[in-house]
Amino acid sequence: MTTLDLGVDPADLTAALVDVPSVSGSEAPLADAVEAALRRLGRLEVHRDGDTVLARTVAGRPRRVLLAGHLDTVPIADNLPSRVDGDLLYGCGSSDMKSGVAVLLRLAATLPDPACDVTWVCYDNEEVEAFRNGLGRVARTSRDWLDADLAILLEPTGGLVEAGCQGTLRAVVSTSGRRAHSARSWLGSNAIHAAAPVLARLADYQPRSVTIDGCTYREGLNAVGVEGGVAGNIVPDACAVTVNYRFAPDRTEHAAAAHVADVFAGYDVSVVDSAAGAPPGLDAPAAAAFVAAVGTAPMAKYGWTDVARFAALGIPAVNYGPGDPNLAHTREEHVRMPLIAQCEQALRRYLSGG
Amino acid sequence: MTTLDLGVDPADLTAALVDVPSVSGSEAPLADAVEAALRRLGRLEVHRDGDTVLARTVAGRPRRVLLAGHLDTVPIADNLPSRVDGDLLYGCGSSDMKSGVAVLLRLAATLPDPACDVTWVCYDNEEVEAFRNGLGRVARTSRDWLDADLAILLEPTGGLVEAGCQGTLRAVVSTSGRRAHSARSWLGSNAIHAAAPVLARLADYQPRSVTIDGCTYREGLNAVGVEGGVAGNIVPDACAVTVNYRFAPDRTEHAAAAHVADVFAGYDVSVVDSAAGAPPGLDAPAAAAFVAAVGTAPMAKYGWTDVARFAALGIPAVNYGPGDPNLAHTREEHVRMPLIAQCEQALRRYLSGG
Repeated sequence: MTTLDLGVDPADLTAALVDVPSVSGSEAPLADAVEAALRRLGRLEVHRDGDTVLARTVAGRPRRVLLAGHLDTVPIADNLPSRVDGDLLYGCGSSDMKSGVAVLLRLAATLPDPACDVTWVCYDNEEVEAFRNGLGRVARTSRDWLDADLAILLEPTGGLVEAGCQGTLRAVVSTSGRRAHSARSWLGSNAIHAAAPVLARLADYQPRSVTIDGCTYREGLNAVGVEGGVAGNIVPDACAVTVNYRFAPDRTEHAAAAHVADVFAGYDVSVVDSAAGAPPGLDAPAAAAFVAAVGTAPMAKYGWTDVARFAALGIPAVNYGPGDPNLAHTREEHVRMPLIAQCEQALRRYLSGG
Repeated sequence: MTTLDLGVDPADLTAALVDVPSVSGSEAPLADAVEAALRRLGRLEVHRDGDTVLARTVAGRPRRVLLAGHLDTVPIADNLPSRVDGDLLYGCGSSDMKSGVAVLLRLAATLPDPACDVTWVCYDNEEVEAFRNGLGRVARTSRDWLDADLAILLEPTGGLVEAGCQGTLRAVVSTSGRRAHSARSWLGSNAIHAAAPVLARLADYQPRSVTIDGCTYREGLNAVGVEGGVAGNIVPDACAVTVNYRFAPDRTEHAAAAHVADVFAGYDVSVVDSAAGAPPGLDAPAAAAFVAAVGTAPMAKYGWTDVARFAALGIPAVNYGPGDPNLAHTREEHVRMPLIAQCEQALRRYLSGG
């Protein structure tokens, strides 16, 4: 098993985390290392649920803050092991969000007596279907472990406070046809050809921008998969385009589904997965206090994040982490190393004085 | 091992052949049964090459006719085992072309002393990439086994003589883009959306019809597969549409490739597989004699068939079989049972008196 030294420089710790591959569904080796490192500290209550590791202080403080980061990454794209170029650290997960997890673990190891009680959460399966999400599982199995006055998700925000989040919905748009031998194609009806207008509507789609509490949410509707074909000499009778709609938090999941059905009117549309967004929620006192402590103007969060899950549990939540959201899920994913230290320092100030 | 009784009614023999599944690449059990049945006759020279079974008379006649049928089928589409409805026999391969193989095997078993020497060929992997074709393999390994004055392929023609064949070419038309998180899709470029015009060109394509020697060849250009997508939350950077172009025998493979490149001008087009067509070739005396013996006017063959392979070897070849070409590769594939017997009788007359 990999042994993590939580005492090293946060950029070095980020590199160590990046170098343990943890594509969604295969987080166990990294979760094992994190659990062992937190247990070695000897002063935290530690709980393991699947590949989610939770730890907390129980000092009886009047306020509790929860810090959370997911351990999993999207599929590796020839971008492991990590490498350093100047003050940039490259590698799968460096931005989304092992630099955030490194900050979280460093603080857990080096803040023996924070001003508030703190819960530290490293969880699995954030990058895949919502029902697999480790935080969602903990909400069902050990709800009390998520109790807090404020949750801070160390998602990549480039060191800014990003408020609320967009919702996300996946749907399959299907076309059908009639099979035939491709040498006598006029006897069949080609389901892939029938998908041409579906792709054209996607290419022509004009996404909305919505401003709430001064935060602007920019939407998007994208094909994330297309599949069709039976054999190399058969006119195919089925084709499926999977689309992902990222919607501003002024729309409910229901309204988002209705919008997608409307865009693809005339086609068979089946929603396969959705998760509500979260409004910025900056009117909650604990959220406002954190924003004031960090000292930067809050922005809209574009990605769906688990702030929505906390919002649904009635817990104010914000995104704040050192990764660059624009590099998440790209081949050239990297993080600015000075920002990791800066983010750690800001959170240290807040947790020490809060 | 299945034991085939070659003495039964040809429709019953067809049903027995259909009930031994033989999707391309898994013909061995059926080839074993065919080989055993032909060896049991005791008067034919038998040769096995992979899952191709060849048998021939060696009576020193002045003329040799070769009859051939492929053992493989396209993937099963919930249409096994075979079933009879009125005078129709349903099942995967019933038309394309186990009814033809049944006629061939019946004749091999029941024509002990034909007027010409006869070579009987049951071969593998006709429904897949040309390089896997069993007949092509035999042409490389045992060329003398294919020597003949006329080759008759028992491909489905509905009891008509179908002359020559169209060529076939498969190509992959690719689009590319730039990966990004789908929550910030404006930072990426969606390769699936970029394929919209490719599908639109396919949907709008107007195929040619070409008449040669009184036979009209009708072309077709179809998507037979489409694939794209990385993960449910990533704007994909690659999409591939596989197309199949069936072209009249007035076009060479080279000209066909140039035409496809022209249709998809502006896109990356890569030819993955092609096979030349064959002109009708009805001017060859042996072919003309067969047409006269059967007594029906010859038509164009739409599907690519191995007549093109014989044409390339300098051997006149025609298609003639009981299956329905319009039902090949469909879920509802079936064959008219009276046509199987009729086809057997016509060939029996020709081989007895030729």
